[in-house]
Amino acid sequence: MRVLGVDPGTLVMGYGILEADEGVTSLVHYGAIETVERSPIGERLSFLYRELSGVIEKYEPDIIAIEQPFVAKNVKAAMAVGRAQAIAILAAGSRGLPVFEYTPAQVKQRVTNYGASSKEQIQEMVRLSLNLAEIPQPNDAADALAVALCHIQEIHLNHLLADSR
Amino acid sequence: MRVLGVDPGTLVMGYGILEADEGVTSLVHYGAIETVERSPIGERLSFLYRELSGVIEKYEPDIIAIEQPFVAKNVKAAMAVGRAQAIAILAAGSRGLPVFEYTPAQVKQRVTNYGASSKEQIQEMVRLSLNLAEIPQPNDAADALAVALCHIQEIHLNHLLADSR
Repeated sequence: MRVLGVDPGTLVMGYGILEADEGVTSLVHYGAIETVERSPIGERLSFLYRELSGVIEKYEPDIIAIEQPFVAKNVKAAMAVGRAQAIAILAAGSRGLPVFEYTPAQVKQRVTNYGASSKEQIQEMVRLSLNLAEIPQPNDAADALAVALCHIQEIHLNHLLADSR
Repeated sequence: MRVLGVDPGTLVMGYGILEADEGVTSLVHYGAIETVERSPIGERLSFLYRELSGVIEKYEPDIIAIEQPFVAKNVKAAMAVGRAQAIAILAAGSRGLPVFEYTPAQVKQRVTNYGASSKEQIQEMVRLSLNLAEIPQPNDAADALAVALCHIQEIHLNHLLADSR
């Protein structure tokens, strides 16, 4: 199973692709799509959509996992997150890929087994889990890998629970 | 100038197309794209994008105007609005059409010349301005026409101001 994790932002969109094969999770690729801050929103969203679609075509994930925060600084920030999420959801949906959404609390819980972890602890756990020398940069990419890792742990847990019944 | 107004929602997306020609504004078309409530979000957003893109291809607007609320019931509602806006912005942006955003207060002010109007008063003003027998239905379509009308008034006012200088 190949998972594309996305950290949605309309300025910077982080992404990370992981391959989970018989209990072994390996890193395929990660990066961040950066837009020009003061360019028109139509251009920015079109650019994000084209670039993320390119990533999907190149790395052919089976599913995408995106972060779905339940809190935001303000309404404007929440709408911006919604816009960025829509780009990722549409890029996946137009190719028939399923979309899974995880809250930051779920990501923390699944990645570190401890819901109250800091963002830095999660990034360090991503580094350890994937056997990397450094925390992936920029942070948006590390956050995207954390969401992908969260989905893989979730699927793994569901299998364990199903097997134990 | 042909304006596509959009009332963004991820369940129902209202749209309305107006033609403004030498001070005369006429109705071209209006409607609402309705999604299936419990279908996966990827399918819903893909459907909205395809349908709205179809409207743009058929009626060839020069610009699109969307509503940009600054308040929302909660973060989840704000993100849903953001997602719906992104669909409209992307449909316009991928065709190089400029996108204008108006707050509900701006729509009220421009359409009724009185910022504190109720939603019903705005819809009635849309009916009167376009010389219609009935308020366009569903309400999402009437709201979309109000945003289109707001943009036309805004452009008209800017011309008046420029001429008076």
